[in-house]
Amino acid sequence: MIALQPGHETAQIPDIVIRRLPVYVRTLRDLHERGISSISSDDLAKHIGVTAAQIRRDLSYFGKFGKQGKGYDTAYLAETIASILGLDKQWDVALAGLGNLGRAIVRYRGFADESFNIVALFDHFADRVGQEVGEMTVLPDDQITKVIQERGIKIGIVAGPAAVAQSVADQMIAGGVQAILNYAPVVLKVPSGVTVREIDPVSALQSMTYYLGDHGDSHLDDQDTD
Amino acid sequence: MIALQPGHETAQIPDIVIRRLPVYVRTLRDLHERGISSISSDDLAKHIGVTAAQIRRDLSYFGKFGKQGKGYDTAYLAETIASILGLDKQWDVALAGLGNLGRAIVRYRGFADESFNIVALFDHFADRVGQEVGEMTVLPDDQITKVIQERGIKIGIVAGPAAVAQSVADQMIAGGVQAILNYAPVVLKVPSGVTVREIDPVSALQSMTYYLGDHGDSHLDDQDTD
Repeated sequence: MIALQPGHETAQIPDIVIRRLPVYVRTLRDLHERGISSISSDDLAKHIGVTAAQIRRDLSYFGKFGKQGKGYDTAYLAETIASILGLDKQWDVALAGLGNLGRAIVRYRGFADESFNIVALFDHFADRVGQEVGEMTVLPDDQITKVIQERGIKIGIVAGPAAVAQSVADQMIAGGVQAILNYAPVVLKVPSGVTVREIDPVSALQSMTYYLGDHGDSHLDDQDTD
Repeated sequence: MIALQPGHETAQIPDIVIRRLPVYVRTLRDLHERGISSISSDDLAKHIGVTAAQIRRDLSYFGKFGKQGKGYDTAYLAETIASILGLDKQWDVALAGLGNLGRAIVRYRGFADESFNIVALFDHFADRVGQEVGEMTVLPDDQITKVIQERGIKIGIVAGPAAVAQSVADQMIAGGVQAILNYAPVVLKVPSGVTVREIDPVSALQSMTYYLGDHGDSHLDDQDTD
């Protein structure tokens, strides 16, 4: 097993590769927990749903993993990729928008299980400000920038309606947020240096109906080719 | 304005292009509602967050839109793309998994607003079977295949835990589902002809921490380049 070669992380890695890495970590950790300590790129590819060539290409950005004929060490590779992604830290997160969706997000254990801790709640609407949700008090939008700055929060979740999403995002960014998970059905405009990921189930459904019935019989074999 | 050229839909269109189309529809409809009847590819690109070249390339798969120097007709282009995607129809949807997340999905109006109607609910756990959620009765998992077949449902949402997700998906597919929106943190194995989209907010967060702090200062300018 050859260790990660320092310096490789600073190369320009396509974002599509970065986006696949969490699935690698999750799959490799799951394999390790099931007692599988080593796996070939062919077998790993089957678990992840990409090709073995894709896996080798993705990992080549970060150094050299696996030995000829011996496969990947699942625990080592999982933790190395986790460390590259910064998942070996705890991350504070601010959430804006406490409607049904926002409340479900606060209740959701999946974030905290993976070291993302929602520590501040904001809402645009006066009737929600002051409410207690998940043992936190909902604060008004005009405190977003100040609180985020004071607490050094780098990650924001936008769960409010489309009409207020851009304003909320702007205030988060003014406070120092550099990564936004956006549930609002709107394309956020953000400055260089800020990353946005959209959670957009409606668009996801809408992009699948193309493949149904008489809307083209072309099939999707590889959802994530770059 | 030149109409869509028949036959273009059957060409092999990259899935990454199909995935962008719902955002085109949403943006163009929004522009039209705001009284903007025509827009240049440069301006449309700014609204969508891609380059003008990308827009021209994406649309070229479907024929020829827009006239030199006149821009795109927002209403016409929105409805043409909507029709290509099959969004001019109503779609029945089956949902499996009625925990917090599943219940929030049933309550969510965004799907019905866009012609996706959740018409059948299933759960693996006996204590949830028989409950009423959104005026529907939760059915047991062993009825998934039968009900989906009888009602001709083509779209399924998997909102249950990772441990039951594959089994639920298999039963949906056996009933005739060809498109699955998967909220479970697991890569579903599906046969050729079935499309899956993952809704995976944890992975989305995990793929952004790479860009925070000392985890690489490379910036993400174009999230969706193909």
